[in-house]
Order: sequence, then C-alpha cells, then structure tokens
Amino acid sequence: MKSNGVGKLRNVVITRDNIGRYADRLNNGYPVDVAELIEAKPIEEALLIFGALDPEFAVVTFSYLVFRIQKELLAHLPSQRVAQVLTALPPDDRTKLLEELPGPLVNQLLKYLSPAERALSLKLLNYPEDSVGRLMTPDYIAVKMDWTVRQVLDYIRIYGRDSETINVIYAVDDVGHLIDDFRIRQFLIASPDTRVEELADHKFLQLHVDDDEEVAIGIFRKYERSAIPVVDGEGILLGIVTLDDILAVAVQEDTEDIQKIGGVEALDEPYMLTPLLSLFRKRAGWLVVLFLGELLTASAMAFFEEEIAKAVVLALFVPLILSSGGNAGSQAASLIIRALALGEVTLADWWRIMRREIASGLLLGAVLGSIGFFRVSLWSAFSSLYGPHWLMVGVTLFISLIGVVLWGTVTGSMLPLILRRAGFDPALSSAPFLATLVDVTGLIIYFSVAMVVLQGSLL
Amino acid sequence: MKSNGVGKLRNVVITRDNIGRYADRLNNGYPVDVAELIEAKPIEEALLIFGALDPEFAVVTFSYLVFRIQKELLAHLPSQRVAQVLTALPPDDRTKLLEELPGPLVNQLLKYLSPAERALSLKLLNYPEDSVGRLMTPDYIAVKMDWTVRQVLDYIRIYGRDSETINVIYAVDDVGHLIDDFRIRQFLIASPDTRVEELADHKFLQLHVDDDEEVAIGIFRKYERSAIPVVDGEGILLGIVTLDDILAVAVQEDTEDIQKIGGVEALDEPYMLTPLLSLFRKRAGWLVVLFLGELLTASAMAFFEEEIAKAVVLALFVPLILSSGGNAGSQAASLIIRALALGEVTLADWWRIMRREIASGLLLGAVLGSIGFFRVSLWSAFSSLYGPHWLMVGVTLFISLIGVVLWGTVTGSMLPLILRRAGFDPALSSAPFLATLVDVTGLIIYFSVAMVVLQGSLL
Repeated sequence: MKSNGVGKLRNVVITRDNIGRYADRLNNGYPVDVAELIEAKPIEEALLIFGALDPEFAVVTFSYLVFRIQKELLAHLPSQRVAQVLTALPPDDRTKLLEELPGPLVNQLLKYLSPAERALSLKLLNYPEDSVGRLMTPDYIAVKMDWTVRQVLDYIRIYGRDSETINVIYAVDDVGHLIDDFRIRQFLIASPDTRVEELADHKFLQLHVDDDEEVAIGIFRKYERSAIPVVDGEGILLGIVTLDDILAVAVQEDTEDIQKIGGVEALDEPYMLTPLLSLFRKRAGWLVVLFLGELLTASAMAFFEEEIAKAVVLALFVPLILSSGGNAGSQAASLIIRALALGEVTLADWWRIMRREIASGLLLGAVLGSIGFFRVSLWSAFSSLYGPHWLMVGVTLFISLIGVVLWGTVTGSMLPLILRRAGFDPALSSAPFLATLVDVTGLIIYFSVAMVVLQGSLL
Repeated sequence: MKSNGVGKLRNVVITRDNIGRYADRLNNGYPVDVAELIEAKPIEEALLIFGALDPEFAVVTFSYLVFRIQKELLAHLPSQRVAQVLTALPPDDRTKLLEELPGPLVNQLLKYLSPAERALSLKLLNYPEDSVGRLMTPDYIAVKMDWTVRQVLDYIRIYGRDSETINVIYAVDDVGHLIDDFRIRQFLIASPDTRVEELADHKFLQLHVDDDEEVAIGIFRKYERSAIPVVDGEGILLGIVTLDDILAVAVQEDTEDIQKIGGVEALDEPYMLTPLLSLFRKRAGWLVVLFLGELLTASAMAFFEEEIAKAVVLALFVPLILSSGGNAGSQAASLIIRALALGEVTLADWWRIMRREIASGLLLGAVLGSIGFFRVSLWSAFSSLYGPHWLMVGVTLFISLIGVVLWGTVTGSMLPLILRRAGFDPALSSAPFLATLVDVTGLIIYFSVAMVVLQGSLL
C-alpha cells in the first residue's frame, strides 16, 4: 500500500500558520485517511484541516467521519461551508446524517438546501428507520429498451458523472416501471448499433422500499451484486442501494452481534472513541441485570444449605457443574445466532435444531460426565477427600453433568429462536445471559440428583 | 424480489424422466438458488439437476456450492463434464477448490486442464494459505498511458468478456509495473480522443501478493473499493482481488469469530449441513479443555473446604461471585476482539486499553458490590440466614466483587491482545474460556478476602 504521509500529520500540531504547508498533502491523500486524522485531532485542529480541503474532497472526507465529529464540525463550520457540504453529500449519506440529528437542527440545516434537494431529503427521511428507503440514492442511470448501445453510452457520457454507480444500468418503461437490469460490461462489449432490447434477459433482482436493512444485506450477500434497484408497491423504480452502503451496515450489524453475544449493549462508536462514561453505561446495564438474575443462585444455594452442611463435598463441584452447563449453552447459542444472521436456519427449522441439540447435548454430557466420574475415582484412590461414599459422589456428578449439559444445549439453541420469534435480536442470548439462566436450573438439577443418589449414605 | 420457482423444486422428486420438464426453469433461475437446491437434494437428484444445466450456467452454479457437495459432484460426474467445469471456473475459484482437495485427487484433476491453465493453477496454489495470492485472479484489463480513451474502449470490447471486472482498469508500463488505476466511469465520461495519461492521478492502492487475507479485508473495508490490484515485490502487476471474493472471506471470518467467542471450533459448513458427528467433535474439543480447566475449581474449593464447613454461608455466594467475574470479562473481551478485527485498536494501544478497563472494572465492581451488600443487609433484616455476622458477610461480598470484576475486565481485555501478540486468533478468548480462567482466580480472591474480613468472627 502506498501512503503519502497523511498519517504522519497525527504527530504535528496543526495551526493557522502551518496548515498552508500541509494542504497539498491532505488533498492528495485518501479521504478516509484524512477523516481518521480529523477524528484523532482536537476540534480546533480538525476545523483547520477540514477548512484546507478542496470542496469536493471535503465532502467525501466528511461522509467518512463518525457521527459525533460530523455533528461537531457542523456546529463550528461557517454556514456557507455547511451549505456546501450538505448540498454535495450524496442523498443517502445525507439521510444517514440527518436522521441522527435532533429535529430543530435538521430543520435549520434543511434551509441550506435547494428546494429540490430539500424535498428529496424530506422524502427519504419519511421512510421507516432501518428500511431500504433510508439507504437508497436516486442517482442511477436508467435507459429505455428501444435505445441503441451508442445512445446508452452517449447518455452515460453526459449523466454518468452524477450517478452513484455506473456498473449497473437499469431499463424502465415509459411510466417508470423497472423492467430489467444490465451490467455496464454488456454495453461495452456489444457493438454500438445493438438495441438494448437485444441484450435483455428480463431477469432482475429488486428490493422493496419498505424492506428491512437486514433483508437487503441477505440479498446482497447471496446474489453478490454491486447495486440493487429499489421499487415501490407498483414496481416503479425509486432508487438504488449500493454495496458500499450495505457493507457499512453489515459490518455494523456484525459488530453489534459480537458485542451482544459478549453481553454488552452495542456501542455507537469505535471502542477507542467511546467516552469512558458511555462505555461504563453500556456495560453496567446488562451486568446489573445479570447480577440480579444471578442473585437467585444464592437463594437456590440457601435452599440446599442443609444438604451442603451435611455434605460439604457437594459444594466443591458447584462451579464445575454450573460452568459446564453455561459453556455448552454458549456454544449452542453462538452457532444458532450466526446461522440465523446468515439465513442458514429459520424459525421453521426449530424442531430439527432441537433434535440435533438433544443428541449433541447427550453426547457432550456423557463425555464430561465420564471425565468427572473418572476424576473422582482417581482422587479417591489416593486421598480420602471424597470419603467412603466416593462412588456415589462420582455417580451424582456423572448424572448431573449429563442433565446440566443437555439442559444448557437445548436452552442455548432455543433461546435465540424464541427471541427472534418474539421480535427481539437473537444475539441478545449472550453467553453471560445464558449462563445466568442455566445457573439456577443447574443448581436445582445438581442438588436434586444428589438428594436421590446420596439418600441414605451422605444425606 | 422476483422468484421463478427454483425453490419450489425442493418438494419435487427429480427423476431421469421428469428432469427435462424442469431444465428451462433451472436455467432461467439464479445460479445461487440452483446451488441451494442442489445442496438440499440427495446426490442422485443433484447429479440430474447439475446435468440439466447449460455449460456456462453449470460452472457459475458449481462455484456457489459448499465444498463437500463440490467434491461429491466431482467424484460422480463424467470426466468430460469435470474437465469442462474445471477449465471454465475462474482461476481464483479454482484455487479455492483445489486447495481443499487431497493431493492425489488434485493431480488427477489438473490433468483435465490445458497446459496454460494448469501452470496458472499450480502458480496460484504456490502462494501461502490465507494469502492474497490465493484470492487473486489474473483476469483484469491493463492499458498503457499513451493510449486514447477510444483505444481503451475498443480494447475492452474485445477482451472485456473474460475479465473478472471491468469496473476498474489498470495502467502498466512496458515492463508490467503497476502505475495507476482508473474507474471505468472515467473513460465513459471522457471524450474519445483523451489520452489515458490526462486522466491519471498516479494515486493508487495495491496489495502485496504475500499479504494476509485479513490485511486485504481491512483495506477493502476502509477504502470501499470493488477491486484492488496485487503486485509482487518489484511492483509488477500480478492480478486483482475483487470485492465478492473478499466479502465471502469476510463473512467467513466473522462467522468464525462469533463461533469462537461462543467457545466452538469454527465450523466448515453451514450449521444445518454440518453432520451431527462433526458438530459434536467441533464442540467436544473445547468443552473438554474447559472442563479440565474448570476441574481446578474443585481443587480450589477443596483447599478452602475447612472454611466452607465452618461457614456454609460462604458457599452460597460462590456462583454469584464467579459469574460476575466471568460476565465482566466476557464483555471486555468481546469489545476488544471486535475492535481488533476492525483495526480500531492495535497492540500498541494496550496501555490505553488497560487504563480504560481498570477504570471501568472499578466502577462496575463497585456497582455490583453495592447491590450485593444491599441484598445481604436487606435479607438480614427479615431472616437469620446470614447469622449475627451478616455485616461482615456483606463487606466480604462487596470487596470480593470489586476484586473479581476488576480482575475479569483486565483479563478479558488483555487476553485478546496477548493472543494476537503470540500469533493466535484473539477470538479464542471466548466467554467460556475466560470464565474458566477467571473462576479459579475468583475463588482465590473471594476466600482470601473472606479469611481476612471474617477472621475472628465466622472463621
């Protein structure tokens, strides 16, 4: 990778006096690198850097900034520059920005736009949050079936500059219904007199403007397109969604999934840019909920206090039993969460999943139970830690582990499905959440088995 | 989305007699849908379906199939069809297939290729696994700086059909050094007599052929390109990597991360297609390792057996204490794993991360500790469960929770960094793995605090 030294400016204090010296280097860099530089700088330096960028370059750079910095820049930039940036932002990026800003500020900013651009922004903002409508841009190339390839290429020469992508070209009828899509390659390798109609296969993908973002991600992943057209209920072409926007959304969704699986509320910004207090708040919520749930284990333990007092040996295996259930559950949950996210399984598969997991749980439980039994037998050959009834202790462990691991796998695999069914994010069935759920039941399984097996000997 | 009913064929038993009736529907569908159909069918039906596909369509469909089915098809197809598929597969897809097959089979398959294609495949297979060399394709368009736009478009008309993408065009010098990249749009909106040189900005991204896949994913994500050129140590253009291949690799990496965080060895196939026994093996490995680690908790508990016998009340809080440490650690780990994967933090940030996590850990621990203390006080007002020394029990809980949560956050945040530093995947620091690590130390922290605080009262 070539670098032209934008990154090195991190170690330079930018001032009104020296910014002129760096302007060229900035404008010859990549916008995303300049955006990273701006994010790493205090606001005074950020403003100087942003002010030194050529207008077009500034707009692209702006679209790469995290939202918090975009907002800060908008608050400090001269209004002329604000108008420039807002007008030049592609409509989909503008929507993304405006939907995050507070209402009064949005109204103020909309004033900077031309009437046509303002109407467009208001229209895009009208689509439901997380819908395809919010992601789409109306800057695409549409042609008619009776044009020749030469006409298409001439049309692109004039209007191609403003289009978000020219890799895909759409055909519409006179009313505006989408009737086909073409790859630019098809026109480039065809002879100039070919009619568009001759290249058509009348086979095309489309998204509905109200579709959820996740639907769009699934279709992009499956069909490997660089852009997909968006239509309304009548089939009228409204805009296109491009892969770069979908990629950004998909990375965000995967990040949220991983954070939720870890038991953290999803962060809004990169880890390092998240203020400490907000980092604390995102974690404290779940941690407290889990703690309150886990307090039930203290009650469950208290319920069996008499048994523990009689046979302290039982207490020794509590962490082992509980963690085995939690681990088995966390494995099952992460498999199902990901399979749901990639569309590999659906709710309708629940019974097939359940059967697989019951089989897996029994097998896994038997393996762990055998190791546990073996350990107790081995120790008892050399020490009197487990007393004269070690065999019964081993049997208790064996049976409990099968029960707890089976319960963990089944809970872990079904919880994501139940959450999805109830309209929640399956990734909420985090390892910590599951462990807490499984802990209380695990204790009950363990002590119940012990009371049956050890009846008359230890208890 | 339009569907032409390929999916409905799932419920039809395909036979030698009825396949003719469905051939048209199959060939008018999307290859990825047909691939899904083939994956869902027994091998006899799969072969009939594959046999009914037009040659070009068959190759694209083949490239969408999961590896296990590809292998099965290759084993059953007539050798003429095997040769056809192998020859027509894009070089990068062919590499992906061959690298998974056993050596003898690869040698046999290579015989089906023309000498030129065979040499190419052997060359690509020579690059290290998981390197950019394995992902690249040599099918790109390269032009010279002294050509006119008209010459470029004529060239594309002839050679564009075989190129993997024509969205990006590369300029090379007479020796083959990469000297610039252009978007096809630049040529389409320029006047035909413009020289390529006039459009050049001599600013371009490149990957080195030995770069790791993860480096490539990072650059694609950051710079939002549809293709990036690959050069050797001299800067000679060797091939290009396209976004669709990177997307597939990135989805795979994210899946592996999520599965590892859940404590499962990464699956090679979608959940539902993974045979039960292989699913069991992927889970049993880690589960047993974790169980063996967790057996140490039984030893740690045994070490404090005397204290537990004296004050059974101490045992009641063991699950609560341990799970709090594990949860806090799992939160920290998932944040850092994802931040590392997205390149938001690097190893050099370890000290900044450590400071943030110490602060977070103390805050979170204090919150949980206070709730714990409050709970003990509240219960003691109504019951004698915690005995006359309830205040000291509450203090023990308060201090232990701060210690355990702090230890969990620090371990959870540092472990991914340590793993990365040692050359392992940070995602191995799964919630279950962390919980096991933190459990033993958590017990030691808890009982040590108890021995100091309860000295002379309960102990």
